[in-house]
Amino acid sequence: MKRVIKVKNNISIISHASVGGGEERRGPLGDKLDFCDPSDTFGQSTFEVAEGECGRIALNTALTKANLSHEDLELLVAGDLQNQCVGTSLSLGSFGIPFLGIYGACSTCTEALLILSAFMDSATDMQYGGAVTTSHNSAAERQFRTPLEYGGQRSPSAQWTATAGGAFLLGRDKTKPLITEYMPGKIVDGGTLDGSNMGAAMSFAAADTIISYFNETGRKPSDFDYIVTGDLGRVGSDILEDILSRELPGAECFHRDCGLMLYDTSRQDAHSGASGCGTSAAVLSAYFLPLLESGKIRRILLLSTGALMSPSSILQGQNIAGIAPLIRIDSPISS
Amino acid sequence: MKRVIKVKNNISIISHASVGGGEERRGPLGDKLDFCDPSDTFGQSTFEVAEGECGRIALNTALTKANLSHEDLELLVAGDLQNQCVGTSLSLGSFGIPFLGIYGACSTCTEALLILSAFMDSATDMQYGGAVTTSHNSAAERQFRTPLEYGGQRSPSAQWTATAGGAFLLGRDKTKPLITEYMPGKIVDGGTLDGSNMGAAMSFAAADTIISYFNETGRKPSDFDYIVTGDLGRVGSDILEDILSRELPGAECFHRDCGLMLYDTSRQDAHSGASGCGTSAAVLSAYFLPLLESGKIRRILLLSTGALMSPSSILQGQNIAGIAPLIRIDSPISS
Repeated sequence: MKRVIKVKNNISIISHASVGGGEERRGPLGDKLDFCDPSDTFGQSTFEVAEGECGRIALNTALTKANLSHEDLELLVAGDLQNQCVGTSLSLGSFGIPFLGIYGACSTCTEALLILSAFMDSATDMQYGGAVTTSHNSAAERQFRTPLEYGGQRSPSAQWTATAGGAFLLGRDKTKPLITEYMPGKIVDGGTLDGSNMGAAMSFAAADTIISYFNETGRKPSDFDYIVTGDLGRVGSDILEDILSRELPGAECFHRDCGLMLYDTSRQDAHSGASGCGTSAAVLSAYFLPLLESGKIRRILLLSTGALMSPSSILQGQNIAGIAPLIRIDSPISS
Repeated sequence: MKRVIKVKNNISIISHASVGGGEERRGPLGDKLDFCDPSDTFGQSTFEVAEGECGRIALNTALTKANLSHEDLELLVAGDLQNQCVGTSLSLGSFGIPFLGIYGACSTCTEALLILSAFMDSATDMQYGGAVTTSHNSAAERQFRTPLEYGGQRSPSAQWTATAGGAFLLGRDKTKPLITEYMPGKIVDGGTLDGSNMGAAMSFAAADTIISYFNETGRKPSDFDYIVTGDLGRVGSDILEDILSRELPGAECFHRDCGLMLYDTSRQDAHSGASGCGTSAAVLSAYFLPLLESGKIRRILLLSTGALMSPSSILQGQNIAGIAPLIRIDSPISS
């Protein structure tokens, strides 16, 4: 079964924006984020609505940078971690852009870019589309675990859901970073049962996608500057690099994880690293895309990684499966 | 802004299956469903896992009818109503098919068929893909409202979440019903606040999609045998037909609603009708596709309709918005 799909027409990331909260501002990429709200509230009265506003700010910032209006976007693909994805749908609805809601847990950023690429490759007269992904620490904590006020102790393998978001505008401009290939992920069940160790649950899916990609294309890891995963954190990254060192030796040297880039875990209390679907969105926009735009790096593989579970499924004793869709992004300067 | 996208390559629904529970078996379409479990448990120990099993049975039935294996499917697009869509991801993962999870509330069936069509129109060497959608009454009641044991009174405008699912295999066979156009929906906020009146919330989105489709294409409602909505129920259908009779006179005569077809509300206690994303999936498979396959009808527009909310968003006083993506399906005999 062929899984890697080549993009036939020019599809590029013509504009993008990253948004964060207070903890993200204090992290190593803090000064590269386009907008931060140290209060994490984004001017809203609840954390859930704040998450939606974070996405609205990201999209408006990306539109402003590109000198485009929301009316120029013909399709918006977006998602978040909230139950029924309401953070996204209730905040982005006001733009009036044709909308597709998706759910890929923390893999949503790559999934959105992948689905939008497929649409723009199919509908060749579509000029502009948008992809938005957000997460919010306080909304996620009370939905998935306990409200912050409860003060629950977190285990060392747990990750810190980022209050972050990213928006990406796709167009046809060949002088911008190009999405040249995509590959949907498979649901991989590695037998993980621990809801405080999502990194482990996602690492097996990331390994499956990376190994399948190189097997199918015949390319070498050294053809890429980085193989970027979403939010495996310390525990998941160690597992992935261990698998890669045995199955695809050398690939582990090219691995970077957004979950280990958003916070400095030596001085920020993020345990195994960042998580949440805003993580890879913010890091892609704030760190990797500028490198691709300037030609400092040639190309990357991006695999946001998702842990497929709900609080109910954990209580009912079900395993946590993982998924890791992939896109390849090429610098316009080297390609 | 152009919203209607024409499918350029042959994409057809080569096989499909419908599954229901006890209440669906007692309804007017009961003897047309491929598989029913009167106990609603599908052999599982929780309602949440039962919903996943309902989807697995639907997909396996559709594969068996087409004499295909799960290994023949190159992409699976699926979703459900459970928090974090775990019904789908944890049950369909075992097939090992590349997977895209989506969330469109009760609009998921049309959204899945639309996204899969875009992928197959883009990746022209993709031969087969699958779309699966499910809902489960008992899982939905305790997640969105109260557990069944609580015995909460339901308002007359409330709908009955169907325990139902549908699976659709898309291929390239021109002798099967063809998906010829698709159109993503816009998020439309009609100001609805009542969580027991989802039909009203969705009706404005359905009206927006239908009126926009006919405005953009210049076609007449009479070019279609039916304009099929997902699950507006009695209240939502009345609102939609009222809007259509003023904005697009005559269109209301072609309207059918799956939510009013799955149960006989004169003898089944379903109040305003069926809801849940399994509703339009089961009715499309059990009722409309056989009519298109036999040439008894020429073409339909299908708009599954979704209400975008969560229990938290209702408690926080947010409006319930609606969305209604559209696909056009043509009979192979008349087209």
